[in-house]
Amino acid sequence: MNYDYLIYLAIILLGTKLLGMLTRKAHMPQVVGALLAGLLLGPACLGVIHDTSFLSQVSEIGVIVLMFMAGLETDIQELKRSGKASFIIALLGVAVPLLGGYAAAILCGVGSSELSASVFLQRIFIGVILTATSVSISVETLKEMGKVSSKAGTAILGAALIDDILGIIALTMITSMADSSTNILLVLLKIVGFFLFAVVAGIVFEKIFGAWIRRYPLPNRRFVIISFVFCLTMAYCAEEFFGVADITGAYVAGLVTSLSPKRDVIYHEFDTVSYMLVAPVFFASIGLKVVLDSMSSSILVFTAVLLVVAVVTKVIGCGLGAKLCRYSNRESIQIGVGMISRGEVALIVANKGASLGLISDGLYAPIVVIVVFTTIVTPILLKMAFKKN
Amino acid sequence: MNYDYLIYLAIILLGTKLLGMLTRKAHMPQVVGALLAGLLLGPACLGVIHDTSFLSQVSEIGVIVLMFMAGLETDIQELKRSGKASFIIALLGVAVPLLGGYAAAILCGVGSSELSASVFLQRIFIGVILTATSVSISVETLKEMGKVSSKAGTAILGAALIDDILGIIALTMITSMADSSTNILLVLLKIVGFFLFAVVAGIVFEKIFGAWIRRYPLPNRRFVIISFVFCLTMAYCAEEFFGVADITGAYVAGLVTSLSPKRDVIYHEFDTVSYMLVAPVFFASIGLKVVLDSMSSSILVFTAVLLVVAVVTKVIGCGLGAKLCRYSNRESIQIGVGMISRGEVALIVANKGASLGLISDGLYAPIVVIVVFTTIVTPILLKMAFKKN
Repeated sequence: MNYDYLIYLAIILLGTKLLGMLTRKAHMPQVVGALLAGLLLGPACLGVIHDTSFLSQVSEIGVIVLMFMAGLETDIQELKRSGKASFIIALLGVAVPLLGGYAAAILCGVGSSELSASVFLQRIFIGVILTATSVSISVETLKEMGKVSSKAGTAILGAALIDDILGIIALTMITSMADSSTNILLVLLKIVGFFLFAVVAGIVFEKIFGAWIRRYPLPNRRFVIISFVFCLTMAYCAEEFFGVADITGAYVAGLVTSLSPKRDVIYHEFDTVSYMLVAPVFFASIGLKVVLDSMSSSILVFTAVLLVVAVVTKVIGCGLGAKLCRYSNRESIQIGVGMISRGEVALIVANKGASLGLISDGLYAPIVVIVVFTTIVTPILLKMAFKKN
Repeated sequence: MNYDYLIYLAIILLGTKLLGMLTRKAHMPQVVGALLAGLLLGPACLGVIHDTSFLSQVSEIGVIVLMFMAGLETDIQELKRSGKASFIIALLGVAVPLLGGYAAAILCGVGSSELSASVFLQRIFIGVILTATSVSISVETLKEMGKVSSKAGTAILGAALIDDILGIIALTMITSMADSSTNILLVLLKIVGFFLFAVVAGIVFEKIFGAWIRRYPLPNRRFVIISFVFCLTMAYCAEEFFGVADITGAYVAGLVTSLSPKRDVIYHEFDTVSYMLVAPVFFASIGLKVVLDSMSSSILVFTAVLLVVAVVTKVIGCGLGAKLCRYSNRESIQIGVGMISRGEVALIVANKGASLGLISDGLYAPIVVIVVFTTIVTPILLKMAFKKN
């Protein structure tokens, strides 16, 4: 028996934590540090660690857990309340980057005939990656400035919730097409089938699970285990029976579980498994996949173009949406700027695309750059947008 | 990419939890249910799940986490206080089952020339498996009867602590010999080398870690991560550089970490990862390895003999030790009975032996039977031993 995976795991946990603490000191989220740790340890720099099947399976569980938690965090009541304005902001905030990413991909000639998916899907997938928003860094910045409950602040929070859902829908559409590129009608049928299945499974689960929880009011391990089982089963069924991404299944499972009265306990326990084991492996494994050999000059140009597109399209998309909903010019800019940062969701989406032949390995580097850059730039721009009093 | 491991994981988590709840209802520990779930799902019954490399690696992390937690639970202060009496009880409680298991193995002709280790080591290893004590079920029973702080109760707790350490030493000796059966002197040198290394690493770690914790008094994730890194590193170094079992390394890491002021926080977080993911996989994987085809009549006879030996040798060994320390006859029997139950440690030891060619797959079944039987019988006998007032 080979015990290398033990020391790999130890190195990954140590590296992601140490660099995460450094980036935290520099007022950046720990995700940035974890990414850099993977980059540093992987073939791009030191070459200490290589991607093994064990690491990739643990990292897949990491993605599933992260997406489940994203669903779990969604406040469906809040979503109903924030309503139409948030929806319009999110819709344009997804549509404009989607088209912008697609246009950038055409402009730079991205897309390879060597991959299994068609060049059209590869290009539109670049757009899908750009749709993801991660507002945690904006929320922290807003908190620091005492502006979370400002008009722009609430709009950002509401729009981010809906942005997640729209992003999942875009991802589901594109990845399903990559899986069985033959018949678009069948693909749509399967997606509809999955969402019907999800609704039925969700209602049944919520009824049984909810009744059980009401009978045993104590916080209890069995609820956590059962929700983990539900999460894994939905992820598996999505992939296996509907050709829908496993992370979509996990997200939907999280949404359903968010209705449970034990939501906070469940979230807390998942969070422990996430930070102690599966999430560091996932973030590091993204860094491990970055290969700098493939950083040709065309990729460098593409990275620069994509960076600009990523920032500009979110500001324009969300800002326009806000303007349509009668926010002032200043507030519209604040909202647009608050939605710039991409985080773990962009990485999760990119990872999924790579496993489906939608993006080549060479594109990992630009995506990591965008996640890191937008995360750094968002709090700076956000402070500027608010300070212009 | 194949997603079967997701549904395997879901089935294992659900199965171990449901059967664990059933056994809990029957006043047995959940470990018994988890074992039965593996038995039921594996090739011995339904054949739904097969042992994959992913499951075996996750289960190995499970073992490491369980042994780390066993070390973490050890109260070194308590150990000093309980002192000589506990030591004598534990020593005889290890020595008698060790010899008893060896004798039973000779009697039944256990040991195969097809395995890599010598027949002598294979037989003595049966004894090593019998040394392990798991007092959690006794502690629960004593609590129920309000006898935890009785004279016999404290003796059981103290002896169980030392029993663990003596068991680890026996395991380390035998497994090291199996690894490099050529030179016994070199083996001993390596074992001594490992313990020297462990002491130095432990002191260095405790100093740095302790100083750090005192500087940042808040409970914090970084401490948990760092202790996990320490645990994995010690496990890896034990195997890789000293030919000592990885679980020995993990146990020692747990002992060192038990001195930390953050011990309770660390224990709690490890416990979450353990019950949510790695421990169910480990217990189920033991059940998965049981193959009933190999339950020949000779194995059935051996199972029966070993059962009697397992119960009798613990009672005699510990009882004799207690008698030597001037406990009354009644108390000596109570102490002996309280130490009967084997639990996860026996499974962990057996698992280790299998990976080193010390026991054949056919012996999993008798060992599982012993763990289940001693766990069921201990509370019943213990109540009888106390009720004879």
